[in-house]
Amino acid sequence: MKKSFTEISGSIVAPAGFLASGVFCDIKKLGTGKGSNKGQKRDLALIVSETPATVAGLFTTNQVCAAPVKVCVERVKKGTAQVIVANSGNANACTGRQGLADAREMAAFTEQALGLSAGRALVGSTGRIGVAMPMDQVRAGIIEAATLLGATPAHADRAEEAIMTSDTRPKQIAVEFQLGGKTVRIGGLCKGAGMIQPGMSPTGARPAVRPNGGLHATMLCFITTDAVIDARTLQTALNEAVANSFNRITVDSDMSTNDTVLVLANGQAGNKKLAINNSQFAIFQAALNHVCLELAKKIVRDGEGVHRIVTVRVNGAKTFQDADAAARAVANSPLVKTSWHGGDPNWGRIIDAIGYSVAKVVEEKIDIGYSALDGKKILWSLKRGQPTKATFQQLCQAVAPKEFELHINLNLGSADAVMYAADLTEAYVDFNKGDIGDPTKLGG
Amino acid sequence: MKKSFTEISGSIVAPAGFLASGVFCDIKKLGTGKGSNKGQKRDLALIVSETPATVAGLFTTNQVCAAPVKVCVERVKKGTAQVIVANSGNANACTGRQGLADAREMAAFTEQALGLSAGRALVGSTGRIGVAMPMDQVRAGIIEAATLLGATPAHADRAEEAIMTSDTRPKQIAVEFQLGGKTVRIGGLCKGAGMIQPGMSPTGARPAVRPNGGLHATMLCFITTDAVIDARTLQTALNEAVANSFNRITVDSDMSTNDTVLVLANGQAGNKKLAINNSQFAIFQAALNHVCLELAKKIVRDGEGVHRIVTVRVNGAKTFQDADAAARAVANSPLVKTSWHGGDPNWGRIIDAIGYSVAKVVEEKIDIGYSALDGKKILWSLKRGQPTKATFQQLCQAVAPKEFELHINLNLGSADAVMYAADLTEAYVDFNKGDIGDPTKLGG
Repeated sequence: MKKSFTEISGSIVAPAGFLASGVFCDIKKLGTGKGSNKGQKRDLALIVSETPATVAGLFTTNQVCAAPVKVCVERVKKGTAQVIVANSGNANACTGRQGLADAREMAAFTEQALGLSAGRALVGSTGRIGVAMPMDQVRAGIIEAATLLGATPAHADRAEEAIMTSDTRPKQIAVEFQLGGKTVRIGGLCKGAGMIQPGMSPTGARPAVRPNGGLHATMLCFITTDAVIDARTLQTALNEAVANSFNRITVDSDMSTNDTVLVLANGQAGNKKLAINNSQFAIFQAALNHVCLELAKKIVRDGEGVHRIVTVRVNGAKTFQDADAAARAVANSPLVKTSWHGGDPNWGRIIDAIGYSVAKVVEEKIDIGYSALDGKKILWSLKRGQPTKATFQQLCQAVAPKEFELHINLNLGSADAVMYAADLTEAYVDFNKGDIGDPTKLGG
Repeated sequence: MKKSFTEISGSIVAPAGFLASGVFCDIKKLGTGKGSNKGQKRDLALIVSETPATVAGLFTTNQVCAAPVKVCVERVKKGTAQVIVANSGNANACTGRQGLADAREMAAFTEQALGLSAGRALVGSTGRIGVAMPMDQVRAGIIEAATLLGATPAHADRAEEAIMTSDTRPKQIAVEFQLGGKTVRIGGLCKGAGMIQPGMSPTGARPAVRPNGGLHATMLCFITTDAVIDARTLQTALNEAVANSFNRITVDSDMSTNDTVLVLANGQAGNKKLAINNSQFAIFQAALNHVCLELAKKIVRDGEGVHRIVTVRVNGAKTFQDADAAARAVANSPLVKTSWHGGDPNWGRIIDAIGYSVAKVVEEKIDIGYSALDGKKILWSLKRGQPTKATFQQLCQAVAPKEFELHINLNLGSADAVMYAADLTEAYVDFNKGDIGDPTKLGG
C-alpha cells in the first residue's frame, strides 16, 4: 500500500494548537534543588491543547495498576480532555488511597495552573513503585512547567526528557497527511526500556482471551492530533493501532503497572469529521498505525541492554491465539533470546519454545527461517520439522545483523501474528540486578 | 511429620538387584577416539535390574518431543521394563523417522547386549537437537557398558557422569525404610542445568489445565527401587512425587523436548505388595516424594549460572491454578530474577509480576515477605499492598543468603503453591549466548 502520509518534525507539537514543556522538580528528591536550569534530567512534563480535545486511551491490564492509570481510565471515558501531566522518578503505584488522592491532585493542580475546567487533565507516571509522590515538588514543577509552554521542537524534546527513565534516547515521531484538502497532523512521543511487554485495553480490564504473557518497565506514549474526530471513533482507531504495535513488543516479558497510551484530538485541522468505514478514516488509521508502530519499535531498539532486535513472524496457525502464543513463547524464551545475543542460529531452542507454547502445533509441519527486514528472501533452516541444507555459516550470516526477521510457519491454517522482540544480554542483567548500595531503589 | 526413612549412599544401585555403568563412546563425534579410558566425559549409561521390574514414567508435555520420549511413552504403558539406556551429547529430537528408528534400535540393541526379552529397554537422551544419533558410536558404547556393569557407588557415579551436560556436579540420592519388617530402598540420580521448567505428564499429553509456563535444558531422572509394587500403583506414586518436585522447579522457564522421569521397581525387597491407601504405601510415597524433591532442588542449585535459589510460596489463593500462576509469574520474571541476583529486595517487581499473572489477585490484599529456609520467622515487606516498617537494610539482609524463601499471601482463599526458582545472572547469559565459532552447537 502506498503511504498516504509523510513524516515531519515536531513530534507532539507538530499538530496545530498543541504546546509542551518539561522541567526538573526533583521528584526523586535528590536534594540538588529544583528548577529546570540546574542541569538535572527533567522529570515533569505538560502536553497541552489550546482548545478542548477528544481523548482516547489504553492502559495496562496488570491487576496491580498505578493510581494515575485509575484516574485516566475514569476520565478518558468522559471523552474530553485538554492536558496531560506526566512525570518520571515515581510511578505512584502501590501507594494506596494516598496515591490515588495524589494523582487526582496532580490533575486538579494542573487544571488550576492552566485555568482549565475541572476534569480536563490526564496523568501519567513512571518510576519507583511503592513510594509516596512528593507533592510539594510536583506542585512546584507544574507551576514552572505551566509558564514554560511552547510549540517548538525543543519544547517537545523537554517533555520527552521529562518522562524518560532508563531510556538512552528520545522516541518521537510526527506525520502529516491530507483529508479532503485539509492538512492533518499526528505527533507522538514515548518512553520505555525495561519491564516491557505491554498488553493494554481501553479500560485496563482484561480481554476474555489474554495474550500469553505479561507486560512490564513502564511504557508511556502520548499522541496529539489536530484531526476532527469524536472520542469513540478515536478510541476505535487507537485500539487498532495499539493492537498492532505496543501490544506486540517485548523486551523482557514483564508487564508494567503503569503502561499508558493517550491520544488528544483537538480538531484544529478543520477536516470533515472522521467516521469509521469512510475512506478518510482509513487514511487517518494508517497514519496512526504508523505513528504507534514506529514508536513501539523505538522502545524495543532502546530496550535495556539490547543488542539485537528480532521481528518474530508466525504464519499458518489455526487461530490468531495460536499464532500469538507461539510468537510470544519464542520472543520471551531466555534461551532463544540469549542465542540471538550470541548470533547463534539455534533453531532447536526456537522449535522447543514453539512446542511448549499453548499454541497447537505439529512438529513435522513447522518451518523456521530468517530474512532481512524487507522479508523478501527467506533462508529456511527447518522445513517440515527437518533441517534444510542451509549451512551453519549461511545461518550465522542471517542472524548476524542488528535487526532481522524470524519466520515461523506452522502450516496448520491461515492465522498469523508478529512480535517485535529484543535479545537478552549480560548488560540487561547487570543493569537490572541493581545496586543495593542505593536504598532509593527500593520498590523501583 | 516424622521422617520414616533415612538417607543412605549408593544412589541407583542402593536398592537390591540393580547395576549400572557409564562409558565414553564419543556421541558428539569429537574424534578423540572412543573408550571410557580416554579421559573424556562419559556419554552413555546403562541402569539395569537383574530381574524384570514394574515401571512408571512422566514425560515432557512439549508438543515437540524427542524420539526417546516417544519410545518410553509406548513402553511404560506396558508396565514392565528392565534396563534404561541413556546418553548425553545428542537429544535425538527433531530427527524425524530416522530418529525414532534410532531410539528403537538403541533399545533393541541394549536388550540384545544384555540378553533380555524385546521391549524391556527404555531410552533417555539429552544434548543437541536436530542431529542424527551416531549409531555406530552408540552401539559400541552399549556393548562396552554392558561389560562394565556393577553395583558400587562408583558405578552409579559413572552412569551419572554419562548423562550430565552443562551440569557442574552429580545429583544423586538414596533412602532406606522399613515396610512390614522388610528393608526397602529407593535410589535416584538426575541431570539438568538449563532449559529447566519441566511440566511432565504420564503420557506426555497435556492436562486440561496447563501450568502457566513452559518447560526447558532437559532434565532426566532415573529412579530405582526394590519395593514390591505394581505398575499402576507406582505410576500413581510417581505422579504425586513429580507434581510436588520436578514440575515445581524453574531455572529459565524453558521446557525441554526431552524431560523424562523413569522409575523401575524390581520387588527384590520382598515387602507385601503396596496398595494405595494403606499405611505402607504412605511410607513409600513419603520416601519417593523426598527422593524427587531433593533431586529437583539439586537441579535448581546447579542451574546454569545460578547464584541464588528462592523458594516462592504463594498462599491464600482462590484456586490452586491461581496460586500456581502467581508463583510461576514471579519465579520466571526476568526483573524479579535479576533483582534476586543483585540481592535487591525489590517488592515492586514482585507485585508487578503477581499482578500480570493470570491469577486472580487484589492489590490491596497482597502480603509479601521473606524468611530463612525453615520458614519460621517471616519479615514482611508488604502487608495488604502497602509497605511495612521493615527497613531497607533488614530486607537486604533477608534476601542476602544463597537460599531463602519468598512468601506471598494473596488473602483471597486457601489454595497454595510453591516454586523452586533460580536467579538470572550474567553468567547464564554468557553461557547460553553460545560460541558461534563452534558449529557443533547448531540446534543444540
